[in-house]
Amino acid sequence: MTKLMKKRSRKSGLPPGTLVHIGEKKTEEIKITVMDYDETSCREEQFTSIEACFVFKDKPSVTWINVEGLHNIENIQKLGDCYGFHPLVLEDILNTDQRPKIEDFDAYLYIVLKMLHNGKSPQTVTEQISLILGPNYVISFQEGIEGDVFNSIRERIRTGKGRIRTQGADYLAYSLIDAIVDNYFVVIEKMGERIEDLEDELIKSPVAETLQEIHDLKREMIFLRKAVWPLREVISSLGRGESPLIKDPTRIYLRDVYDHTIQVIDAIETSRDMLSGMLDIYLSSMSHKMNEVVKFLTIIGTIFIPLTFLAGVYGMNFEHMPELKWRWGYFVLWAVMSGMAVFMLLYFKKKKWL
Amino acid sequence: MTKLMKKRSRKSGLPPGTLVHIGEKKTEEIKITVMDYDETSCREEQFTSIEACFVFKDKPSVTWINVEGLHNIENIQKLGDCYGFHPLVLEDILNTDQRPKIEDFDAYLYIVLKMLHNGKSPQTVTEQISLILGPNYVISFQEGIEGDVFNSIRERIRTGKGRIRTQGADYLAYSLIDAIVDNYFVVIEKMGERIEDLEDELIKSPVAETLQEIHDLKREMIFLRKAVWPLREVISSLGRGESPLIKDPTRIYLRDVYDHTIQVIDAIETSRDMLSGMLDIYLSSMSHKMNEVVKFLTIIGTIFIPLTFLAGVYGMNFEHMPELKWRWGYFVLWAVMSGMAVFMLLYFKKKKWL
Amino acid sequence: MTKLMKKRSRKSGLPPGTLVHIGEKKTEEIKITVMDYDETSCREEQFTSIEACFVFKDKPSVTWINVEGLHNIENIQKLGDCYGFHPLVLEDILNTDQRPKIEDFDAYLYIVLKMLHNGKSPQTVTEQISLILGPNYVISFQEGIEGDVFNSIRERIRTGKGRIRTQGADYLAYSLIDAIVDNYFVVIEKMGERIEDLEDELIKSPVAETLQEIHDLKREMIFLRKAVWPLREVISSLGRGESPLIKDPTRIYLRDVYDHTIQVIDAIETSRDMLSGMLDIYLSSMSHKMNEVVKFLTIIGTIFIPLTFLAGVYGMNFEHMPELKWRWGYFVLWAVMSGMAVFMLLYFKKKKWL
Amino acid sequence: MTKLMKKRSRKSGLPPGTLVHIGEKKTEEIKITVMDYDETSCREEQFTSIEACFVFKDKPSVTWINVEGLHNIENIQKLGDCYGFHPLVLEDILNTDQRPKIEDFDAYLYIVLKMLHNGKSPQTVTEQISLILGPNYVISFQEGIEGDVFNSIRERIRTGKGRIRTQGADYLAYSLIDAIVDNYFVVIEKMGERIEDLEDELIKSPVAETLQEIHDLKREMIFLRKAVWPLREVISSLGRGESPLIKDPTRIYLRDVYDHTIQVIDAIETSRDMLSGMLDIYLSSMSHKMNEVVKFLTIIGTIFIPLTFLAGVYGMNFEHMPELKWRWGYFVLWAVMSGMAVFMLLYFKKKKWL
Amino acid sequence: MTKLMKKRSRKSGLPPGTLVHIGEKKTEEIKITVMDYDETSCREEQFTSIEACFVFKDKPSVTWINVEGLHNIENIQKLGDCYGFHPLVLEDILNTDQRPKIEDFDAYLYIVLKMLHNGKSPQTVTEQISLILGPNYVISFQEGIEGDVFNSIRERIRTGKGRIRTQGADYLAYSLIDAIVDNYFVVIEKMGERIEDLEDELIKSPVAETLQEIHDLKREMIFLRKAVWPLREVISSLGRGESPLIKDPTRIYLRDVYDHTIQVIDAIETSRDMLSGMLDIYLSSMSHKMNEVVKFLTIIGTIFIPLTFLAGVYGMNFEHMPELKWRWGYFVLWAVMSGMAVFMLLYFKKKKWL
Repeated sequence: MTKLMKKRSRKSGLPPGTLVHIGEKKTEEIKITVMDYDETSCREEQFTSIEACFVFKDKPSVTWINVEGLHNIENIQKLGDCYGFHPLVLEDILNTDQRPKIEDFDAYLYIVLKMLHNGKSPQTVTEQISLILGPNYVISFQEGIEGDVFNSIRERIRTGKGRIRTQGADYLAYSLIDAIVDNYFVVIEKMGERIEDLEDELIKSPVAETLQEIHDLKREMIFLRKAVWPLREVISSLGRGESPLIKDPTRIYLRDVYDHTIQVIDAIETSRDMLSGMLDIYLSSMSHKMNEVVKFLTIIGTIFIPLTFLAGVYGMNFEHMPELKWRWGYFVLWAVMSGMAVFMLLYFKKKKWL
Repeated sequence: MTKLMKKRSRKSGLPPGTLVHIGEKKTEEIKITVMDYDETSCREEQFTSIEACFVFKDKPSVTWINVEGLHNIENIQKLGDCYGFHPLVLEDILNTDQRPKIEDFDAYLYIVLKMLHNGKSPQTVTEQISLILGPNYVISFQEGIEGDVFNSIRERIRTGKGRIRTQGADYLAYSLIDAIVDNYFVVIEKMGERIEDLEDELIKSPVAETLQEIHDLKREMIFLRKAVWPLREVISSLGRGESPLIKDPTRIYLRDVYDHTIQVIDAIETSRDMLSGMLDIYLSSMSHKMNEVVKFLTIIGTIFIPLTFLAGVYGMNFEHMPELKWRWGYFVLWAVMSGMAVFMLLYFKKKKWL
Repeated sequence: MTKLMKKRSRKSGLPPGTLVHIGEKKTEEIKITVMDYDETSCREEQFTSIEACFVFKDKPSVTWINVEGLHNIENIQKLGDCYGFHPLVLEDILNTDQRPKIEDFDAYLYIVLKMLHNGKSPQTVTEQISLILGPNYVISFQEGIEGDVFNSIRERIRTGKGRIRTQGADYLAYSLIDAIVDNYFVVIEKMGERIEDLEDELIKSPVAETLQEIHDLKREMIFLRKAVWPLREVISSLGRGESPLIKDPTRIYLRDVYDHTIQVIDAIETSRDMLSGMLDIYLSSMSHKMNEVVKFLTIIGTIFIPLTFLAGVYGMNFEHMPELKWRWGYFVLWAVMSGMAVFMLLYFKKKKWL
Repeated sequence: MTKLMKKRSRKSGLPPGTLVHIGEKKTEEIKITVMDYDETSCREEQFTSIEACFVFKDKPSVTWINVEGLHNIENIQKLGDCYGFHPLVLEDILNTDQRPKIEDFDAYLYIVLKMLHNGKSPQTVTEQISLILGPNYVISFQEGIEGDVFNSIRERIRTGKGRIRTQGADYLAYSLIDAIVDNYFVVIEKMGERIEDLEDELIKSPVAETLQEIHDLKREMIFLRKAVWPLREVISSLGRGESPLIKDPTRIYLRDVYDHTIQVIDAIETSRDMLSGMLDIYLSSMSHKMNEVVKFLTIIGTIFIPLTFLAGVYGMNFEHMPELKWRWGYFVLWAVMSGMAVFMLLYFKKKKWL
Repeated sequence: MTKLMKKRSRKSGLPPGTLVHIGEKKTEEIKITVMDYDETSCREEQFTSIEACFVFKDKPSVTWINVEGLHNIENIQKLGDCYGFHPLVLEDILNTDQRPKIEDFDAYLYIVLKMLHNGKSPQTVTEQISLILGPNYVISFQEGIEGDVFNSIRERIRTGKGRIRTQGADYLAYSLIDAIVDNYFVVIEKMGERIEDLEDELIKSPVAETLQEIHDLKREMIFLRKAVWPLREVISSLGRGESPLIKDPTRIYLRDVYDHTIQVIDAIETSRDMLSGMLDIYLSSMSHKMNEVVKFLTIIGTIFIPLTFLAGVYGMNFEHMPELKWRWGYFVLWAVMSGMAVFMLLYFKKKKWL
């Protein structure tokens, strides 16, 4: 189950800018992949040491450095020194408990996003992605959970399909964000299916587990919401055109991603509304069942309790009980008792209890 | 039942601007209708190939091209190339999961709306309508569900009734939007009737199905709301006059549509409030019924349980039980038992349980 | 009961500006009253044909034309043609399903308000009032429900009491709005009394009808709110001084009406809060009663069920049951049973069930 | 109990500016107190006729006229004529149903506030205070409920303690507002104590009266809120410095009162949250108790009902019932019955019902 | 338990600027610590009298005066006189019931914050911290609860680690705020753990104490929220750069603290949502248990009540009861009764009650 919050307290008391990795170590080895391309050529390499990337810094072609795995603090430090990133940026990259945000340091933009995964477990896994967009480079940092939505972009760069090779680093950054947001739809759809399954179940035969499942989905919704809501502001601010790093043609594309984000938020809000409604249904269906049970007990009880009383009366041992001596007493009593039962049943019928 | 979300995930990983039809294929054949008119003449034609429409592009008269059925991607692509639409616009036309929005591309406005239908089923059906408004043309795209609110506009163009033939393309676009919004009232009124029927039922004799119906109406309200709320912003932005494609006299008419949209939203919010109130009523009426049942059991139980005990006592076989030998014992006991029952009934009367 | 919405769908498909009367015909005959006054003189006349009013159009004195009854569409059309009103204004006058709004057509202001009546029935009746304020005239349209809050204004004009005769048409329009808003207080106070009566009832002896009444009041509140909320914006926009038709001294008076509107809204919100609270009280008082009933059953049941068991035991017919032969067996058993009952009662006392 | 609304309807139909006293007459005699002071001297007088105050109008020293009791309309009228107040201001002073507001008439500021009292009854009493701040005077109007938070200010003026004698009329107005807001803390604290007492009670032994008390406190909170929320806007607008009647050094003090108002609002919101939480607790504690009662009945019932059945079986009068003849039959049955009871108890233990 | 509000009423009636200590006296002795440092040197001293601090006032180096314990009013007064603080600032420092705020007095900034502690008790303790930031000094006031988050900053100043010694007083103020906000994460994490423990408990075996614990956590959340929400505005206003006392490089750091504050607020809101959800779960789990108990009673009751009735019938003493004489009557009855019981069990199985 997703933890309510990560162990951030570890950092309390340290001076600002101290690099500490907050979050679980999700991968063993660190993978550094570089793609360097322009309209005509494309080079792709994997490095084990971060220093190898530094040669790309002053090349005019677009460079995309992707770092998977954040626990090697030294690497991040070196990269930051080479490119001149503010220590607080490096600190935030390592702190995987950020909310999505964008910060404009003039020379580069620092963007934090949340990638959502639907692994084997039904639960959604969140991974923090940091992007740094400079004039001719994009550096992306992943926590390194297996599964990656960037593969299609790599393929497009390799094959030169689409616009990507003819555009600058801002279009690359847009493509990465677009890939992340597009993947939200996959996650949200799976959620949607779970909710609809649950709805069917609720109508047919609600059980105690249904409630637990509603609760779990509500809980996950809270976390999804936390990951997606701030994104709206981030992308809107990217598209609004305050930074010269984003060129005008890319803005139209960012407007498109913005629309998608709104749609994701819409879907989350709709799901929340649905889940609230389902809780109400569950509760009133419980109360309906209770009604049924109690009604049943009442019917059985009110029919037999008076009859048992009568049987008790004629089981008494008084010496003078004239009825006991009557020839047809026993059969008359049976008739009376049957009559009472029938009357009761009719009464319940009239009250719509049967 | 309306799906919570459409299969959008299919697109995840594709480059932006890739044309993929998202949504069900709602019609088999594609229908392209062109109306070309000015103050004096009016021409109406049906085509099977999109190329035939291209001749209208540079005519000064107002041209309305209506495309029904979106699954022929090639057609849309050709149309877009001819008129010079941005690839993202074409992508959005095909993606029927859009929320209502307006986008200003200077040379044309792209508007997405939701048309609501009340078919034979009580459930409301949503259809996406895309409008592209250029200086002398309006192109509208429908998914192609049978039933169409545009017929009255066609009739008005043919007969030259009203202002429509003397006005430009912006007035045509307004007329289409107005027809869609006017149709909302039809849908909302039907909803209103269902709600009022339900309310009567709730007061007379709530059953388990009532709850299900409340839940269904709430669910539909969520979807209606999603279709109508963003419209407010769309129409207000159209009317605010930022685009030179909308002329001033048309703005007054747009203000009128804006008012209608607000009224629709008002009606939806009112219905939501009513439905919430009805759920409360249902729950407390259930609890009231339960009270009745339990009270009944309690009355029967508390009257007969003590009497049965007494009968049991005089059914015991002790050798020395003086009462059993009394001449009037049996009758005295009956008197005592009747007294107890009467006392109990009076007690319940006093407690207002009877 | 107030209908959730009026039959507006009738208009769907008609070109904008088509005059159709939406709403019930609330009066048989149409009454046209004209008051024409200036500081020194005052003329009051009743007409049956609208044309008779046209002579007042160009007189410098202030003219107030009051039209009661909206089903004669021709009249409205003629009036509109004479004064040059926009077709959409005439359409809105006839459509009694408007929400309160103000529209500025430079030459005149068009204002829609809702008048509230408390007729003989406890339910509140809503009537749409349209005002058109021109430089030297006010034209008011009523649906024509009997009962009219404008009589006091007529009286003031006739007698020249107060400021009204010395001021322009804007002050007259203010006076009409003020009369309508002042009447809200009458309606709201009656509601307040019903709520307080209900509250007393709720505390003393809640019955199923109490719930129904709470529901009805909530429903009415929803409609009141719909009538009053938009008014705030209307009056505030009137007072803000964008139109030259409203002169500065009148603005101070409009600020005063604005305050009253806020007070009405405050009172409505307070009532809503109160009604919500009352529903909670009702539900928990139901659950309290249930508790009482079940407790009673439990006490009776748990006292007598064990005793009945004991009586049953000594009613058995085993040949060897030593107790049955004891001299004091019967009396000992009574003692034991009384002891058990007393013990139970004490136990319930301790548990605070008694 | 505080009435939901005052009898304002009495005014409906009267021309604006008509002076009518709305609210209960809370004092018999009208008290007019004047304090006139500057840095060096201070004069304090009580008048019975309002005309005596008019001499102070043109004196350069600061004059504070305090009017207690509003039912003498003539007095208010004369004062208004002398100082040149707008008729609507006089109307609002008499109408004690105002919400807190500020109105700027250039020559003077008109401020309405609500004073809260905690009299002997636990209920809070609200009194409307109107302040008119001119260049060299403050006129305050009270309804005249006994108990007055202005005494400390009078004392400070008399003794010349603090800054008050060296400052202008704006500082005096600030001091009066500060005194009123400071008194809110007294009222809120008493409410806080009642809430905490209630919370203790709720945890220890909730009774039906607890619910009533929660309801009453919620009701009072609604009224408190209504009195305090608009104050925020009033004081903020005073402090923002739009009127030249407020000098700059006084603004810092107004900022301080503003902070206090925010704190009062905070406290009210916190109390509301607490009360909502308490209602939930009450309801679920009721349901917990119900559970206990029903569990008890179930335990007694399920133990004894089967045993009673067995006793009934061996009380039957069949001629051939072999068990009845067994030597140890009776004792074996006792053993069996005890075994069943023990088994049931263990079963309940396992189910955690005991 | 945290009191709903502090005894502020004590101040009501006193002139503004009167120094009264509001809050509990949390420490016996007053501790005044001074750190005076620049890039090259650092001096640290403890004083018992406040006058000793005055020598630092005009030194160019950065001075940090930390005052622990607020009950010595004279000290605060003297310090205020020496540095020229506004009397309202001194009043606010002593009044520990402030909400976080910032006030700009041009020559200095006055900032109020809340420090949160997790002592030995599970409850969170709140301590008010006042900071005054001047051109070359920071004066901090603490209530003096043991435990201090400033120690790490002292250590950094002493050792010259990090940036702190090379920066001005604004960076010192930032560091203090950062330390306080960082500590919030510690508190919030502990809350988070309690919530997650509670959630486990809720799913496994909810008891009455679970409800109490949910209530307590909700209550604490209300107070946390009150302490943290206004902080957002405070820090955002600090970072926005209106005061020249804050230099530009420090603003980036303040933006970082702002992010942290948002994260804390996010975490609090998430926790609140979780707690609300848990209350729903608790209530419906209670209702589920009730269902179980009632179902059990119903099953036992409906099986044995008819059987007991039959046994009663054959326990009657009528002279003519043919069945009693039958050879196998007793055994046939047993068969019938067993059959009835089996039938009932099957029926319950079908109804899913078993």
